[in-house]
Amino acid sequence: MRKISKAVITRLPRYYRYLDELIQQDVERVSSKELSDMMNVTASQIRQDLNNFGGFGQQGYGYNVKYLYDEIGKLLGLDVTHKMIIVGAGNLGQAIANYGNFRNRGFEITALFDKNKDLIGKKTVNGTEIRDISTIIDYVKNENIEIVALALPKGPATDIAEKLVECGVKAFWNFAHTDLGFSDDIIVENVHLSESLMKLTYRISEKANKNK
Amino acid sequence: MRKISKAVITRLPRYYRYLDELIQQDVERVSSKELSDMMNVTASQIRQDLNNFGGFGQQGYGYNVKYLYDEIGKLLGLDVTHKMIIVGAGNLGQAIANYGNFRNRGFEITALFDKNKDLIGKKTVNGTEIRDISTIIDYVKNENIEIVALALPKGPATDIAEKLVECGVKAFWNFAHTDLGFSDDIIVENVHLSESLMKLTYRISEKANKNK
Repeated sequence: MRKISKAVITRLPRYYRYLDELIQQDVERVSSKELSDMMNVTASQIRQDLNNFGGFGQQGYGYNVKYLYDEIGKLLGLDVTHKMIIVGAGNLGQAIANYGNFRNRGFEITALFDKNKDLIGKKTVNGTEIRDISTIIDYVKNENIEIVALALPKGPATDIAEKLVECGVKAFWNFAHTDLGFSDDIIVENVHLSESLMKLTYRISEKANKNK
Repeated sequence: MRKISKAVITRLPRYYRYLDELIQQDVERVSSKELSDMMNVTASQIRQDLNNFGGFGQQGYGYNVKYLYDEIGKLLGLDVTHKMIIVGAGNLGQAIANYGNFRNRGFEITALFDKNKDLIGKKTVNGTEIRDISTIIDYVKNENIEIVALALPKGPATDIAEKLVECGVKAFWNFAHTDLGFSDDIIVENVHLSESLMKLTYRISEKANKNK
């Protein structure tokens, strides 16, 4: 398969979300024009994106919604189960643990880890256990954990991530305010909340300057 | 000012973060080459990005760290205070409210809103009050709220956002699993957690296919 651009990969989950909504509305076929109107991207962009993966549709007939949804799901790796743990059982860690949609999409959150003795041994709203951070290395090795979500501050996040890489973890979902800086062999997907908020204020400030 | 590309805007908060780290290490000047090594982007990319805003540096002398930090801060609208409320006082809403860095960077979170009677009247860890969602419209009008963070499910998020737009809100930081779909006049910055996670599994799946 040829190398797919980051922009296309970023759009795939969005296609998946809109196709999911169409399925829920019992829509069976959709044209690139209809998808385009819903999603506010051009129809040619949609065709071009999907052509990266071989097309999925026949010219003039539109796409079979369920088929396209399943195929994009496979591209996104959602046809297999991913075992994930969360490091940091504060509000953010618990928010991630309780987010119902993840479970429906093949993510199995098996435990949270924290150093806070008041939290260790408790369970999140949906019943996931909070474990002692000092037991994480053994746990990750024994339970075959694929993804580690880092919901703790920058310093401890970096330390724990380095230890986890040493024991074989290859993928991090990183909420800490750092880029981690591993080699390309390790997959890191960042959610930098404050950077997202700054993009928002950039646009507020840009608009204010325009209206001056 | 000419139109700045989305990619550049996305990189600005990252420059800001790295410059902040340099300030904390008492570094006074930095070359684009040094920044490039730290940030894993090319030096020419950095020069090109900053040239969009007039340059900030003299060829061969590098950048004055504090000056560049302040100037990028102004571009990001961080030289003024932004009043923000959070709708939804669950784990995610409270995680946002308690995130310390926001306050240091000119964001003033004045209240959270929820419909859950068990939460109304309580305060978050850092002392922000949780108010009754039924009072939000008056509050937003009286308190001159600029940004509304939506930390609640898709359906109610869409409803409340529409009402808030009617009473003048122009900027949403949206964590709900929807694009809201307002006109360009309304600024929406999305944080779609599940889409970020799917990008991660895309890369896991891509790597697995490569190694086959």
